[in-house]
Amino acid sequence: MKHHDRDTAEGILFTDQYHLTSAQLYYRMGLHEKPAQFDYFFRSYPNYGDHQAGYCIFAGLEWLLDWMDQSRVRDQDVEYLRSQVGSDGSRLFADDFLEWFRAEGDFSRISLRAVPEGRVVHPNVPLAVVQGPLALAQILETPLLNHLNYQTLIATKAARMSAAGRGRPLFEFGLRRAPERGGNAATRAALIGGADFSSNVGVSHLMGFQPKGTHAHSLVQVFMALGEGELGAFRAYADVYPDDCLVLVDTVDTLGSGVPNAITVFEELRSKGHVPRGIRLDSGDLAYLAIQSAAMLDGAGFPDTSIVLSSGLDELAIWQIITQIEEEAPRYGVDADRLIGRLVYGVGTSLVNSGSFALDGVYKASAIRIDESWRPMLKVSETPAKTINPGEKRIWRVYDSRRTATVDVLAMADEEIPTMERVRLRHPVREELTRALERRDISSAEPLLVDILREGRRVADQETVEQMRGRRRVDLERLDSGVRRLINPHIYHVSLTEGLWALKQRLVAEARGKGQGSD
Amino acid sequence: MKHHDRDTAEGILFTDQYHLTSAQLYYRMGLHEKPAQFDYFFRSYPNYGDHQAGYCIFAGLEWLLDWMDQSRVRDQDVEYLRSQVGSDGSRLFADDFLEWFRAEGDFSRISLRAVPEGRVVHPNVPLAVVQGPLALAQILETPLLNHLNYQTLIATKAARMSAAGRGRPLFEFGLRRAPERGGNAATRAALIGGADFSSNVGVSHLMGFQPKGTHAHSLVQVFMALGEGELGAFRAYADVYPDDCLVLVDTVDTLGSGVPNAITVFEELRSKGHVPRGIRLDSGDLAYLAIQSAAMLDGAGFPDTSIVLSSGLDELAIWQIITQIEEEAPRYGVDADRLIGRLVYGVGTSLVNSGSFALDGVYKASAIRIDESWRPMLKVSETPAKTINPGEKRIWRVYDSRRTATVDVLAMADEEIPTMERVRLRHPVREELTRALERRDISSAEPLLVDILREGRRVADQETVEQMRGRRRVDLERLDSGVRRLINPHIYHVSLTEGLWALKQRLVAEARGKGQGSD
Repeated sequence: MKHHDRDTAEGILFTDQYHLTSAQLYYRMGLHEKPAQFDYFFRSYPNYGDHQAGYCIFAGLEWLLDWMDQSRVRDQDVEYLRSQVGSDGSRLFADDFLEWFRAEGDFSRISLRAVPEGRVVHPNVPLAVVQGPLALAQILETPLLNHLNYQTLIATKAARMSAAGRGRPLFEFGLRRAPERGGNAATRAALIGGADFSSNVGVSHLMGFQPKGTHAHSLVQVFMALGEGELGAFRAYADVYPDDCLVLVDTVDTLGSGVPNAITVFEELRSKGHVPRGIRLDSGDLAYLAIQSAAMLDGAGFPDTSIVLSSGLDELAIWQIITQIEEEAPRYGVDADRLIGRLVYGVGTSLVNSGSFALDGVYKASAIRIDESWRPMLKVSETPAKTINPGEKRIWRVYDSRRTATVDVLAMADEEIPTMERVRLRHPVREELTRALERRDISSAEPLLVDILREGRRVADQETVEQMRGRRRVDLERLDSGVRRLINPHIYHVSLTEGLWALKQRLVAEARGKGQGSD
Repeated sequence: MKHHDRDTAEGILFTDQYHLTSAQLYYRMGLHEKPAQFDYFFRSYPNYGDHQAGYCIFAGLEWLLDWMDQSRVRDQDVEYLRSQVGSDGSRLFADDFLEWFRAEGDFSRISLRAVPEGRVVHPNVPLAVVQGPLALAQILETPLLNHLNYQTLIATKAARMSAAGRGRPLFEFGLRRAPERGGNAATRAALIGGADFSSNVGVSHLMGFQPKGTHAHSLVQVFMALGEGELGAFRAYADVYPDDCLVLVDTVDTLGSGVPNAITVFEELRSKGHVPRGIRLDSGDLAYLAIQSAAMLDGAGFPDTSIVLSSGLDELAIWQIITQIEEEAPRYGVDADRLIGRLVYGVGTSLVNSGSFALDGVYKASAIRIDESWRPMLKVSETPAKTINPGEKRIWRVYDSRRTATVDVLAMADEEIPTMERVRLRHPVREELTRALERRDISSAEPLLVDILREGRRVADQETVEQMRGRRRVDLERLDSGVRRLINPHIYHVSLTEGLWALKQRLVAEARGKGQGSD
């Protein structure tokens, strides 16, 4: 995209056409300034085909706030909308609406409560709640979903990969296979969710992380073409980066050439007082090659150099590699735990594309303020699970006596879970499923939503990615290990209070009656 | 991302760290200015889990060229690189390299041949061939892959969906579920590959397409909360957009409320001389609901209004809907062909995420110029299929006597396929597979690569998306219908000439011998 086109493609017009036509309709009906509330939530955990997540890591908020702060209607945007015509050739957007849009089309009157980034989150729980003038909250739908769905999807995948790797360093290498500019959001989300470093130079810089990388296959190819072979390439690398010498050993023949040449160079480095960093394996049977490489490196007196694994890794592949090493390493005289403890994982394609279609996050109108009072709004769906939870709500996370998170509760705005003697809970959809929590079973209950924007003004501090990472670690520790499982995780409970359930039932019944209503 | 950070994250640092460390190494060894050639190609068609593509549509080139044109090393980029330190705390990048990088770190000396956007393309065929100073061609690797992999993936998916819909209009609605800013690239690629319109306002504008959309579910919800019901919402919509009235009928109860209310409003519009546009179905059993809606609309005298289908559509879902309509429509007195001919498809999630991980495109060093002559470079892989095809090459597409594309041929630079009496072809990997083409069997042969940049100067005209769409249509017509099949397509032939095959064998043997080579 041309540089000067970015503000057009990534500004206020980074939205769907129907939000603009709806906004004009609200304007025409005098509804555009009515305060409305929209809830953002996802409906199901990412499904990776043969397995599914049991939790997500929330991410993307800060870059959404940046977008909101920077997106204003420019003269050229108005001009463009003025030029749009409908089927009959007449203008689609009228001057009075466009004048209002030019003057008021920003997010300086939007209030936003949200879950902080890095937190563990679950389906059907509002993670962001927007209040503001109806027409503007409507236009925000697509950009909000765009920012939050993708980063949450990627942060979740990174958390799973980090868990599979048992806390060994995880490097994000995905930019080349990432969805164009979305690759930058992927890097940020991966760092929040579980990656420890990234190869992406620009975003690592902005987030305060040292970008990581070794060398290209082409380095070896070039030296081979020059007649100096793989060893010549490794020597050159060691010369230039004597204290960061991590070489890629699979360009020719990993065990027949790559590792022996690496050891030759490592010995030369050692004799000059340098500590070699390690090798990278990027093709073949990574577990087998890691074992054989470890045996060779151990034998040469390099038991501590890292072995970086990359190529097609996801959480299951990492898990499989560790399992295979545990089974096979002893057969070759290699200590499995020591080997696992020197591994580093480089992940790309399956991280930045996640292996799941998309997070199915939605942004649903849940209330509108009419005559000074909030009126709950409902979308009755053909699918009961898709019927939204109406009205103003508070969200509580409840911890059991083991201080483990046991349920996220959607409550009415005036329900104070910590002071209730007994909390009767309802499954969001299935009427027959109820649960009661006694006060003595609750170690604590915390509200999940935090005030972020009040009428456009930032009221929460801006955070570093490191803070978000800390929050993720704490939340994962307080999550039941059954829920954290990579395969067939326990289903974490998300419930409605009896009060919110009753309101929803009443509104559904009313809607079914009124759907055909005439004026 | 903050506005002022975009030039950092999306400029020259939109690459991987190892390209920069490799570049410095080349600089240190005096190799950085050596002319090198890199080939871009993908290895396999997108795999959607239960089905796989039989062709791809190439896209992304123009936005890559924009990136190259706009990415220059800024003072702050150099400052940042100067601040990077290695493991021992000393600086990673030295001043002399950074000075060179500051002065020469752009793509004004890069030459590029590429396949034009919109063309049908196949695995293992170089789609872009870069020549230029080694260090700069290396840095280009990640941005090039990032731009071309994603747009080609999405254009391909759009082509499949368009084919499944039998040419009925296909609308791209995916921005909300798209990978953040990558959503804009997705919209562009979708329009090249097969989408006819998009809801994405900004990019539609830039590409010269009218953005499409109807109204939000929340419109109906708002009117219900106001006591005016779904009918009130539809009336309001018809008032504001009398000639573009396309209403969303599934907010309450599609057949019990939505369609009857739509018909009421359509009758009111008709009485005022307007032509109603149609309805949109966004949940439930779309084929069944389309049949019933069509019956109701036909009965009310609206046989020509569109029926837009959306919600979870991909090429198989579209195919299934058409099949189900063909089977069931007659049972309800609805003409299946007529109904299929009034359908419009709105696709989102599975288009912009494609359903496949990523296109597995790679960028491989294939030649280096030493002493005025190009020397082929090879990466011998543990996996034979991953061994690259070395050297300078020409790519030919050969059409058989039916004027159908029959094979893409990788040939030596001096092999002129159209003048050869007999072309002996080799499978890229499997030695036992050979094929011979007689001149009389060939109706034509065209070179696929076009000169795009000569030393940074644009030598090909800039094209409109419409031109690329036209090229796609022509190429698809010249593709065997077996290859176009959605499921289990025929495998299109990609072959090497006997000459290139022999060169590759020789280099592999040499490399295996020299891998361990010392200096």
